[in-house]
Amino acid sequence: MSIRINEETLDPKDWKAMRALGHQMVDDMMTYLETLRGRPVWQQIPEKVRRNLKKPLPMKPQGAKRAYQDFIENVLPHPMGNIHPRFWGWVEGTGTPFCMLAEMLAAGMNPDLGAGDHVANYVEAQVLDWLKEMLGYPAEASGLLVSGGSMANLTGLTVARNTMAEFDVRQHGLQASRKMIFYGSTETHSSLQKAVELLGLGSDSLRTIPVNGQFQMDIEALETAISEDESEGYQPIAVIGNAGTVNTGAFDNLNALADICAREELWFHVDAAFGAWAALSPKLRHLVSGIERADSLAFDLHKWMYMPFELGCALVRRKKDQLQTFALTPDYLARAKGGISGGPVWYSEYGFQCSRGFRALKAWMSIKEHGIWKYGRLVQQNVDQARYLAELVDAAPELERVAPVPLNIVCFRFAANELDNAALDELNSEILLQLQESGVAVLSSTMIKGKYALRVAITNHRSRREDFELLVREVIRLGNILVQSRKNPKNE
Amino acid sequence: MSIRINEETLDPKDWKAMRALGHQMVDDMMTYLETLRGRPVWQQIPEKVRRNLKKPLPMKPQGAKRAYQDFIENVLPHPMGNIHPRFWGWVEGTGTPFCMLAEMLAAGMNPDLGAGDHVANYVEAQVLDWLKEMLGYPAEASGLLVSGGSMANLTGLTVARNTMAEFDVRQHGLQASRKMIFYGSTETHSSLQKAVELLGLGSDSLRTIPVNGQFQMDIEALETAISEDESEGYQPIAVIGNAGTVNTGAFDNLNALADICAREELWFHVDAAFGAWAALSPKLRHLVSGIERADSLAFDLHKWMYMPFELGCALVRRKKDQLQTFALTPDYLARAKGGISGGPVWYSEYGFQCSRGFRALKAWMSIKEHGIWKYGRLVQQNVDQARYLAELVDAAPELERVAPVPLNIVCFRFAANELDNAALDELNSEILLQLQESGVAVLSSTMIKGKYALRVAITNHRSRREDFELLVREVIRLGNILVQSRKNPKNE
Repeated sequence: MSIRINEETLDPKDWKAMRALGHQMVDDMMTYLETLRGRPVWQQIPEKVRRNLKKPLPMKPQGAKRAYQDFIENVLPHPMGNIHPRFWGWVEGTGTPFCMLAEMLAAGMNPDLGAGDHVANYVEAQVLDWLKEMLGYPAEASGLLVSGGSMANLTGLTVARNTMAEFDVRQHGLQASRKMIFYGSTETHSSLQKAVELLGLGSDSLRTIPVNGQFQMDIEALETAISEDESEGYQPIAVIGNAGTVNTGAFDNLNALADICAREELWFHVDAAFGAWAALSPKLRHLVSGIERADSLAFDLHKWMYMPFELGCALVRRKKDQLQTFALTPDYLARAKGGISGGPVWYSEYGFQCSRGFRALKAWMSIKEHGIWKYGRLVQQNVDQARYLAELVDAAPELERVAPVPLNIVCFRFAANELDNAALDELNSEILLQLQESGVAVLSSTMIKGKYALRVAITNHRSRREDFELLVREVIRLGNILVQSRKNPKNE
Repeated sequence: MSIRINEETLDPKDWKAMRALGHQMVDDMMTYLETLRGRPVWQQIPEKVRRNLKKPLPMKPQGAKRAYQDFIENVLPHPMGNIHPRFWGWVEGTGTPFCMLAEMLAAGMNPDLGAGDHVANYVEAQVLDWLKEMLGYPAEASGLLVSGGSMANLTGLTVARNTMAEFDVRQHGLQASRKMIFYGSTETHSSLQKAVELLGLGSDSLRTIPVNGQFQMDIEALETAISEDESEGYQPIAVIGNAGTVNTGAFDNLNALADICAREELWFHVDAAFGAWAALSPKLRHLVSGIERADSLAFDLHKWMYMPFELGCALVRRKKDQLQTFALTPDYLARAKGGISGGPVWYSEYGFQCSRGFRALKAWMSIKEHGIWKYGRLVQQNVDQARYLAELVDAAPELERVAPVPLNIVCFRFAANELDNAALDELNSEILLQLQESGVAVLSSTMIKGKYALRVAITNHRSRREDFELLVREVIRLGNILVQSRKNPKNE
């Protein structure tokens, strides 16, 4: 009937060759992961590689094989290092070989979990149910898998803002509203400040409450702040509890916060980005007591659940609140009684994204692979490693621990007696740099009560005790060398 | 020195078996993709599968092999269908076999592109530079890869709000501000409304301007609205131009909008979610003329660039505006002069997310694989297919086209003379459902000037002309049967 024209596709002409390339990739990546420990954690990227990554836009095809070759030469050898056993910088994740494969499956199926009746949405529902069960959160709560803790916190705070407002924020905006106040401790993660800024509330709206010696929110100070704000004519909206702060791994007294929220009729949001997973270990579970009382809850799976980026989750106690905040159904997304436009849940109605990838699959597959008890043992293992490192630090006269270790984060510094704080800050930042540049270990830094601290955050299923022993030896060795070179400066 | 304890890991005990499983997956997925065309586009999920996806939380390990078996039995056979050659519902993407493999590589390396000096950030910078070049956008502009069009639009509108405000929105919030007004046509995508709601501006702030017969924003109506708002004491902030509307693929007159924005000193944001890619075809490029004048620009790669979810992009003309909107550097993310905490760009400062996955890799690899000219040909091919379908529709007396076809979207309906509009709406929705349930094709629906329309959006590198011929035959066949059964209802 029609004239046959020569239609093109992005599928390979030679499927056999693409298959062979896939096999090659699996082999290369498995070897890469199996031999990780023998390589430096991190290395400076050579100038040549930087230049190779500033190439003109390719107009003509290079082909799959050549593109992969380029990856092997320029990309794979220069990783961040966070999958290495001795990476403990910031709070990062590691991923697993099976999750890596699961991401391939997800990208092959490539469904859109924003809309439609298809299996991926049931997988996400299953994962959400499991997560609620893991955290003791009500089974009837709603939720959404999101890109990470920032989006999870944003999701929770948006529902809080819209639900608690005295008027319809979605329609009218904040322009005529009273100042809405959110409360969090001084240790609250920056994503919460970014969230209140994005939401149009202004960082002025985030009241930061001081902490006690355990880096927990000062409950009395919170109560005072709430009553002061009320007498100023502001509207207190929500208290943000921390379950595992980013600086020191501290837990707020979640039950005390929940009590205040109940009494004052405030929203209770918990940022449990990585601390949520204390729930999986019988010895640690008490730390998250009260988390099940949160009105909204944010946490990651791509960090302390060791899954690849990006995978966070927001849970909301009352489904109605979440839907009223996010559901919007234009004509072209109309639901139908059956067919692909049917189905029980359209996740685009539960959050900000419209199209959504199949991030649920890696969670579903790896929870099945390992079972939850094993995750609990690994979380406990990381906490035991943190305590072990704290013991090593405490036993070493050259080292000073600068914060308690309630969970998996150890903050310490090399502290030679004869140096003042400014000199120690400089010396420790040099130790940090040399550790990184030698490829021995990656830590990050933070400031604890005015002191520059080396910060070790352990969310790594590949770390072993011997790795922390090596770390302590190296910090002492580098510290001593640096102190010596201060005393005997060359060429002076 | 220390007592050796039995430390666990999530790495496989048997790497050889994990490798073999990876090979099996590559084979299964390649076969799955190669044989796509022979299967139904979509099928209802069997009740048994739904039950299998409501299992209790696994406490004990099932192992990788068993978990994969479960995927093969319960997940893979029940896809959304968007990767199939005859899926044209909503606007979805297809993905490619090579991108599928690239996602595996990205998840294996698993870097965090929020922070740090490592190769993945250079890959993202390279991709952003290529994207600017592809769209003729200024090379000095800044940008960010994001989860999709919604986040890209949100990013642009946030920068617009914060940059154009008469005060510091980040600090003070909107509570005491004048009403800020954003303008978009009635055809503007729902993600823009969700964005202004999220931002605390309220949907009242999104002034919807009527369209002309080509579904383009009415320029005079826009000018009138701006001057009315000014005289009301509101603050006009931004005009949102559409490059490819979701209903009909219409393009606003971007140059006219840019002129107005220049004259009125307004921000010019363009939502080019899929329409951006008209830029790649010499015959279509004129449609996006003016896009290079946008202050911010949002588009997807996971739809009409045929890459897997999630991959969108926001570009912002002046880097300073983007940084001033999003950068926030707490102590634990402090930059350093060298080491992993150095590096030229930390992408967490350019957007809302803190941790960010390696979504850049699939773009980098597939642009290299195919080269940009091929993408241009495929975009043109889809547009030619849309025009071909429009011709088939126009030639069929039973069918009525209900909107122009400026790009890749065709809206039409089965229109038997003897039925009124309500009956036609019902009949066409039944046709839509039967097409889906038979697995022949997936379309979606929309309302065009009060008429229920079958909507075919072609962003699919696997579609052929013969697929559209089949579609037209099937719509006519189903329509005739349905008209007949109306005339001769059984058992009545």
